[in-house]
Amino acid sequence: MSFPAGPGSLYGFAMRFFSDNAAPACPQVIAAIAGANRLDTAYDGDAWSLRLNSAFSDLFEREVEALWVSTGTAANSLALAALCPSHGAILCHSQAHIQVDECGAPEFYTGGAKLLLGEGEGAKLDPDIVKGLLGGIRRGDVHQVQPAVLSITNATEYGRVYTADETAALGALCRGEGLRFHLDGARFANAVAHLGCAPADLTWKAGVDALSFGFTKNGGLSAECLVFFDTELAAATRYRRKRAGHLLSKGRFLAAQILAMLEGDLWLANAHTANAAAARLAEAAGPARLLQPVEANEMFVRVSEAEAAALRAQGFDFYDWGPGEARLVTSWDSVPTDVDALAAAIRAL
Amino acid sequence: MSFPAGPGSLYGFAMRFFSDNAAPACPQVIAAIAGANRLDTAYDGDAWSLRLNSAFSDLFEREVEALWVSTGTAANSLALAALCPSHGAILCHSQAHIQVDECGAPEFYTGGAKLLLGEGEGAKLDPDIVKGLLGGIRRGDVHQVQPAVLSITNATEYGRVYTADETAALGALCRGEGLRFHLDGARFANAVAHLGCAPADLTWKAGVDALSFGFTKNGGLSAECLVFFDTELAAATRYRRKRAGHLLSKGRFLAAQILAMLEGDLWLANAHTANAAAARLAEAAGPARLLQPVEANEMFVRVSEAEAAALRAQGFDFYDWGPGEARLVTSWDSVPTDVDALAAAIRAL
Amino acid sequence: MSFPAGPGSLYGFAMRFFSDNAAPACPQVIAAIAGANRLDTAYDGDAWSLRLNSAFSDLFEREVEALWVSTGTAANSLALAALCPSHGAILCHSQAHIQVDECGAPEFYTGGAKLLLGEGEGAKLDPDIVKGLLGGIRRGDVHQVQPAVLSITNATEYGRVYTADETAALGALCRGEGLRFHLDGARFANAVAHLGCAPADLTWKAGVDALSFGFTKNGGLSAECLVFFDTELAAATRYRRKRAGHLLSKGRFLAAQILAMLEGDLWLANAHTANAAAARLAEAAGPARLLQPVEANEMFVRVSEAEAAALRAQGFDFYDWGPGEARLVTSWDSVPTDVDALAAAIRAL
Amino acid sequence: MSFPAGPGSLYGFAMRFFSDNAAPACPQVIAAIAGANRLDTAYDGDAWSLRLNSAFSDLFEREVEALWVSTGTAANSLALAALCPSHGAILCHSQAHIQVDECGAPEFYTGGAKLLLGEGEGAKLDPDIVKGLLGGIRRGDVHQVQPAVLSITNATEYGRVYTADETAALGALCRGEGLRFHLDGARFANAVAHLGCAPADLTWKAGVDALSFGFTKNGGLSAECLVFFDTELAAATRYRRKRAGHLLSKGRFLAAQILAMLEGDLWLANAHTANAAAARLAEAAGPARLLQPVEANEMFVRVSEAEAAALRAQGFDFYDWGPGEARLVTSWDSVPTDVDALAAAIRAL
Repeated sequence: MSFPAGPGSLYGFAMRFFSDNAAPACPQVIAAIAGANRLDTAYDGDAWSLRLNSAFSDLFEREVEALWVSTGTAANSLALAALCPSHGAILCHSQAHIQVDECGAPEFYTGGAKLLLGEGEGAKLDPDIVKGLLGGIRRGDVHQVQPAVLSITNATEYGRVYTADETAALGALCRGEGLRFHLDGARFANAVAHLGCAPADLTWKAGVDALSFGFTKNGGLSAECLVFFDTELAAATRYRRKRAGHLLSKGRFLAAQILAMLEGDLWLANAHTANAAAARLAEAAGPARLLQPVEANEMFVRVSEAEAAALRAQGFDFYDWGPGEARLVTSWDSVPTDVDALAAAIRAL
Repeated sequence: MSFPAGPGSLYGFAMRFFSDNAAPACPQVIAAIAGANRLDTAYDGDAWSLRLNSAFSDLFEREVEALWVSTGTAANSLALAALCPSHGAILCHSQAHIQVDECGAPEFYTGGAKLLLGEGEGAKLDPDIVKGLLGGIRRGDVHQVQPAVLSITNATEYGRVYTADETAALGALCRGEGLRFHLDGARFANAVAHLGCAPADLTWKAGVDALSFGFTKNGGLSAECLVFFDTELAAATRYRRKRAGHLLSKGRFLAAQILAMLEGDLWLANAHTANAAAARLAEAAGPARLLQPVEANEMFVRVSEAEAAALRAQGFDFYDWGPGEARLVTSWDSVPTDVDALAAAIRAL
Repeated sequence: MSFPAGPGSLYGFAMRFFSDNAAPACPQVIAAIAGANRLDTAYDGDAWSLRLNSAFSDLFEREVEALWVSTGTAANSLALAALCPSHGAILCHSQAHIQVDECGAPEFYTGGAKLLLGEGEGAKLDPDIVKGLLGGIRRGDVHQVQPAVLSITNATEYGRVYTADETAALGALCRGEGLRFHLDGARFANAVAHLGCAPADLTWKAGVDALSFGFTKNGGLSAECLVFFDTELAAATRYRRKRAGHLLSKGRFLAAQILAMLEGDLWLANAHTANAAAARLAEAAGPARLLQPVEANEMFVRVSEAEAAALRAQGFDFYDWGPGEARLVTSWDSVPTDVDALAAAIRAL
Repeated sequence: MSFPAGPGSLYGFAMRFFSDNAAPACPQVIAAIAGANRLDTAYDGDAWSLRLNSAFSDLFEREVEALWVSTGTAANSLALAALCPSHGAILCHSQAHIQVDECGAPEFYTGGAKLLLGEGEGAKLDPDIVKGLLGGIRRGDVHQVQPAVLSITNATEYGRVYTADETAALGALCRGEGLRFHLDGARFANAVAHLGCAPADLTWKAGVDALSFGFTKNGGLSAECLVFFDTELAAATRYRRKRAGHLLSKGRFLAAQILAMLEGDLWLANAHTANAAAARLAEAAGPARLLQPVEANEMFVRVSEAEAAALRAQGFDFYDWGPGEARLVTSWDSVPTDVDALAAAIRAL
């Protein structure tokens, strides 16, 4: 793999708008790792790990339990295993990451729970869609897995954002139906940055029991935080985390990353940067090209094969979403001159 | 947790001989992480990850498949899942890490295989012990899980080393009995350093199918490598790794650590340093105190309660192994002056 | 629960057309159980169990391995566990019994495989539908479960029958795509009876690897047979059967039931009886009422609430399928005078 | 397999003292099956199944939940899955059926719990042995599976019986240690018959949470009952039973067997018959031959190879337990003249 250098680029063009997964870690995170490189207690007994609960309790304005893990798939699966029995069902969108991009991790961790899939615009669910899913299940009939958890993604897999009210409406439905509520927040920062609300508003105040809070896409090296608002769920999860091979022996390096991201609200600043870049691109693309409103750091656009080729010829890389469709992702490190160049290129199509 | 400073110490005394798990990452590893901090393909498609197979093939003098993971428990469990059906049995020592320190991870990953436990001095097994275990199973009887894998640890949980011949004898037994052969090499480097043999001699030449090659205890930040000598096992394992949440999105940071450790045989140099420190301590302790011959980087010694307190009062920390017993672990970063100080303190007991 | 007696009924009316699951066992089966009530080897080492392989090999005109189990869910799940790895996907209809009526048993037995659901008229799949499902999966991408098995039900959950040609077309697709092929034959007898073809034509000659051959709905007491055309799959399944608690200690009572059903093609005669009864009812209902062509022993009809109530008032019981829809099931023991009475009542609606 | 006829034998000699697993079903059970052979609600909604809770509540003198299953392995595994999380440990004897004869079913059903094995004479555990097992576990350390359940077998795999006091002592330990308590009662009837106590005394009054109450070895055709004294455990277990393929569609045939066995205390009468036969054999063998006191329906005796051959030459069959050891099992149907003949043959050795 080669990285052709280009004007205005720090890294070369290739893949720059391909995925936030591939971005570097931000300097503060690297510095925090270097700073944590001293002897300390192994696993999660170190000085950094021990600060996570209070740091996240501050952020969320209530007591929480916060466990580091190294991937979003692990965070999601551990959360779902805490919330769903093996004979339960997890309600989610048909395009949810837990359904289409985790190779069955939820099934593995829950001991074989079933995902029941709803359809909704922008990879979003709403109460009616969830009620429709519930209507397809014979409640209390032992021949069917019983609905146990609702899982949504915010921002969604299509870069859409659930508002606090939308989330709360789903949370209220969950409480009424005896469901637990999980939030896949791989891009939670982008949702909060978009809405300008408090993290609490999108989570426990809206009925969320557990949050997979993503940091890796947002400037971390490899760090996600599983936040339990129902704190009693944490105890068993600590065993499951070890049992799944996710209790790193030098866990301080994960905790230090996360703390660095929380410090001075770096997580939010990074998300603002990424969102703003996407907004500039969306403005350039114009409504006619947009497959989805751009609310976070992803843009789904209509581009012909020739247009896509033209953009790539200018050094911009991105993901082919389908015939005539492309996904462009910005990130904390999207270089302003690159973004401007791409915006201009899109305008010129 | 406080770290009192002390003469001759970089980190303060506390915990220095407690565990190699708690050691810092070595400078070359930190540098490699910084060096990998640029945009590249996500997951394991990056330039570093793509070099792993050839780097390990060179090291082992044959074609291998090498997959990074972030913990030894993940490496062991993925290896065992590749080698053992859910209705199979894994033969191992009663003190094996997979039995006593992984919270049932092998059972989780294999879908409920059973570990059958042998007893042997120094946490080592030999062919007779394994034959004894096999003798307790009615082969071909569907009422019993059937032996599928032998798993040994080298260096063992008691700091003992299997020679190439000892390993090969077990390997031959495995072949004769239709068993696969797994090697937990959390401290494989220490075993190789002790014996001065080729890595091949302790692995595939001795019949080993899969190796969990540890780097974290030996100077890594969080990186282990699962090495398949039976390369056909790798394909399904790549799915299982994802499914277990162990496919990091910025995998290049794991691969870069491992490549840095292989570079110039740093892994071996680090292990020599740790082993040598343990040897100095062992010499100071003298045979009468030693519960086990010291062959790698762990020393198990008899110390009275008063002696242990005396050592701790001088700032040395270590693990109480049992009544009147202590475990002291050296590592790649054991500070020579600290080691000398501890050796003197032990002599003075 | 009371069973009101009624004219022309052996059992009382209640539930008679509710489900073939609730029917009695046929006299030959009861006699066979009594005949097997003598001392013999436990588990499946008895004289009856040892005859299963040859009996089914005769029936299918090739060598097969045949294992009794006591439920269709167990047969299906053991078959799927033999055919699908835990990181695999099972392609089936959205209305398949394995998806909607087995409480996640396939997920449990496979260690968390995922069911991917197709839509097709009459709960039937065809090659285009399967290709559509395959098109939604990124083959070889470790982030997604990979298609491993196609499972169809014949006769389907809507009483429809796959012909030999239709089955073979799916089988050919499976071979081309590297999929295994499972047939849920809870009502296999009804399908064979409808088509008048050889059992081989609907199974291995059409590419089927494993068949869940149902006997319980068709006159058995509690006996199903898992038939492997890929005979190598049987060995591991025998362990899984025990491990799942499905190796009955007095297995001869299961084997004897099955052998009694095969004797003189009783299985086929019973299915003919049930199918003929359904056909008489379908004729009475007329095409306008039928939601599905009646090909086996189930009839799905449009009936208003008032009509349904009228039928029930006359003593006929059946299952409400949905608003304005009803399911009526005939069985080996449908009493001719009852069937005639119901046919007349339907005509009179 | 041939069954040579012999004087004084109903079935021929072969295997008569081999295992109670192989015995026929008793006539009342066969009659009950015939009597249940009429249309009724499927699964466990029929008239017989609905009577189980009250029948067992009467027997145990308190409210219980009672679920039929068709094997003891299923009963044990469902009980353990209800009592033990996947990261928990099940404490049991090294010779427990759940460890050595169920092909890992407990691991399968619990999602990979670990069995921790104690040694005790006669396959019995006592509080000191259990305390020893507990002492080997670091409580609250996430690296280790945590003790969750104690499982004992009464009568044991060596035909020994726990008294009510012995059971209660273990129950008290469980309560003190936060363990749940499971009783494998495959031969519970034989234990009750031996002690002459109330079923309540050996179960909930002694702290037992769940009982696998065996009927198959004691005259049933294929029927066991899982009895929950902690009735809240039943609800989830009903789903797990379906999910495991153990919810038979014609469940009335299981329930009817069990009710027939409870009727007039047939279960107890059958056990008395079997125990008495074993006692006669034990008396004939004399204390010197007995490897275990004979308390239930199994006798473990020292017999030389020549002696074993001599007995077999006379038509008696039994299980070779080990070099110079044999196991002889009596059952509800042990023919008195056969027992007398065997007693005489043993005396004559």
